[in-house]
Amino acid sequence: MTTQLTVNGNRLWQSLMDLAELGATPAGGCNRQALTDLDRQARDLFIQWCTDAGCSIKIDTMGNIFAQRPGRNNNLPPVVTGSHIDTQPTGGKFDGVYGVLAGLEVIRSLNDHGIETEAPIEASVWTNEEGARFSPAMIGSGVWCGEFDVQYGHSRTDKSGKTIGEELARINYLGEIPCEPRPIKGFIEVHIEQGPILEAEALQIGVVEGVQGIYWYDLTLHGTPVHAGPTPMNVRHDPFMVLPDIINELYQLIEQYGPDSRITFGDIKAEPGARNTVPEKITLAVDIRHPKQAILDELDAKFRETINNHCEKKLFNYNIRDEWRSPAVQFSKTCVDAISNATQNLGLTHKHMFSGAGHDSVYISRKAPTAMIFIPCKDGISHNEAEYATPEDIEAGANVLLNTMVSLANS
Amino acid sequence: MTTQLTVNGNRLWQSLMDLAELGATPAGGCNRQALTDLDRQARDLFIQWCTDAGCSIKIDTMGNIFAQRPGRNNNLPPVVTGSHIDTQPTGGKFDGVYGVLAGLEVIRSLNDHGIETEAPIEASVWTNEEGARFSPAMIGSGVWCGEFDVQYGHSRTDKSGKTIGEELARINYLGEIPCEPRPIKGFIEVHIEQGPILEAEALQIGVVEGVQGIYWYDLTLHGTPVHAGPTPMNVRHDPFMVLPDIINELYQLIEQYGPDSRITFGDIKAEPGARNTVPEKITLAVDIRHPKQAILDELDAKFRETINNHCEKKLFNYNIRDEWRSPAVQFSKTCVDAISNATQNLGLTHKHMFSGAGHDSVYISRKAPTAMIFIPCKDGISHNEAEYATPEDIEAGANVLLNTMVSLANS
Repeated sequence: MTTQLTVNGNRLWQSLMDLAELGATPAGGCNRQALTDLDRQARDLFIQWCTDAGCSIKIDTMGNIFAQRPGRNNNLPPVVTGSHIDTQPTGGKFDGVYGVLAGLEVIRSLNDHGIETEAPIEASVWTNEEGARFSPAMIGSGVWCGEFDVQYGHSRTDKSGKTIGEELARINYLGEIPCEPRPIKGFIEVHIEQGPILEAEALQIGVVEGVQGIYWYDLTLHGTPVHAGPTPMNVRHDPFMVLPDIINELYQLIEQYGPDSRITFGDIKAEPGARNTVPEKITLAVDIRHPKQAILDELDAKFRETINNHCEKKLFNYNIRDEWRSPAVQFSKTCVDAISNATQNLGLTHKHMFSGAGHDSVYISRKAPTAMIFIPCKDGISHNEAEYATPEDIEAGANVLLNTMVSLANS
Repeated sequence: MTTQLTVNGNRLWQSLMDLAELGATPAGGCNRQALTDLDRQARDLFIQWCTDAGCSIKIDTMGNIFAQRPGRNNNLPPVVTGSHIDTQPTGGKFDGVYGVLAGLEVIRSLNDHGIETEAPIEASVWTNEEGARFSPAMIGSGVWCGEFDVQYGHSRTDKSGKTIGEELARINYLGEIPCEPRPIKGFIEVHIEQGPILEAEALQIGVVEGVQGIYWYDLTLHGTPVHAGPTPMNVRHDPFMVLPDIINELYQLIEQYGPDSRITFGDIKAEPGARNTVPEKITLAVDIRHPKQAILDELDAKFRETINNHCEKKLFNYNIRDEWRSPAVQFSKTCVDAISNATQNLGLTHKHMFSGAGHDSVYISRKAPTAMIFIPCKDGISHNEAEYATPEDIEAGANVLLNTMVSLANS
């Protein structure tokens, strides 16, 4: 084990708590939605801190912020870290903002240690990751990678009809550099896990190899609405007579595909929804996830086959509507290896894993070598005012980030 | 066979079609839910027709309407017929309203024939029989018989929070006479069967001896709401992992108890109902029926046992809320015999049977001698826009009603 650099954990924790005051909720969370006055105050504070740490600041036309600490050779592509500082309406103190302030802490620590890296180091902030105020989520990184054009990005509206473009101008964050890819040596995002795995296995670090692909469906089963009393059971065409076997077999299918597979039935509706009428239709919301695209597509085929088999056997009509598809993402092996090495050199317990939630890294990975670092969060809870991570884990994740970025910047 | 009175079948059919225009749906059904503006229009039209036929009108504090045609001796308790004019959200043209307009047709026919009965004859309308807009069903007759008090009746709310009391006042049907029993010589309700039995056996009339008992429950299964992505399947506490086996086993239980047993799951709700969150709870509406009270109570016990076994085995918390209970009903022998005689005298094919659906007659039978007349309905379909009865059967049922009421009024 080589000697590893370390951050100032107390300073990082203090910066998190200071930023959490902007939008603090009585229940201990944060409500700091994108492009509000609170978001502006948080951005201003971040820029002040970065400037004080000797960084130069650039802001692009989607309001994404890049704070650069120069390297020995500023013609080299930088190593970049970052995340977002917007929150859900009843969000926590850590989701997103930890990844932003860990980047600041990396820069401050390099200053403390008097270390000059070969390539420059950058900390970044990406606009409207949560999608809580403006839909879709991850719009800042989405425009940057070319998934959306900037006109689309600027025209997104909140519930009151205000656009991202107007709100960027209002809070003075409509920057001048184009929102588009440029050479980046590596992008590393550190984030709370937003799930229970690391805590349950008592591990300190998740080395994130990619992001689950997500397929969303609406499954509708059609029955014949008849009166609950007079109609004998054997002449009914009741979708509840086929739904249970479908659900059970889908759970079995997912189990066969191992612990990285997920299926969730988050919502269900019966129509007409009268207690004394057999439903004319039942609509079930289905969410299937897997980190490997090929397996996700296999699950998609077997999902359709399962439903078709049961409905054909019992003579039910059905419909499967494809609601949304987010393909699986594989991160850069170089970046994953750099994280893995830093983790081992720091002597931290860890596992390789996949992210179950979307992140700016999903879009950034399309244009730059990317990977993520996870730390545990209490009870796996996120998007919630009760969201919590310990100071020890916050520091450990930042130490991994620091050593990963330095190794990439010097390689 | 004595000479029997007959109604004007064409006039009755025309009144049914006229009333069906209030709330007519594109698919040929009716959506005329209780205490809506459409219900008011239908009530107004019924009262207009009854007034034109020489009746006096009384409305009680639950909005139940009584239209009386005087007899020779108006101190005698009247012979009453009636049903309801509210429908399911995707209901048909016949359920309920046939029994109301057949009563009107009896009165019109007595006028045509210049017949004066000994006791008065009444046609009635009972509020919110369907229970589609306000729960529980049959609230108008339920308050009348003392099953519920009027404060309870007035305080029932629809999904938007509006109460029956407010809506009665709004549509001007908060009547002044008390909603309570008074002497009634006999109550006869004519109704479509809402089941397939008469049609399957090619019979014209069902002489209804009683009504299935009905138990309504809300079963709530409690889970833990976690994010669909990061949470592995094996640590989830997902109520959809226990619900399918419960539903399947309840269907098997009902099958074991033979063809008179029924179970229906008419509605289901997942909360919070977000596609990417495991439900915190699922609430399932359950309707269990049997014509024998002792067997119904046995089914009730086994229903609870089934749920408890599955939830205990898989460590789920659950709650069973008793939403409503309607015990099995035996109708009045006098009234059943009067119907049976009229049917035979008219030379109609018939059978004695039980009702599988709840009806206002269930509650009214607690305070007055009661029985029902069924006619076939196409494919046994009801609570459905495709609900249909032939003009011939509509007329035959009204002929039985007319002769039954006259014989009771003169006896």
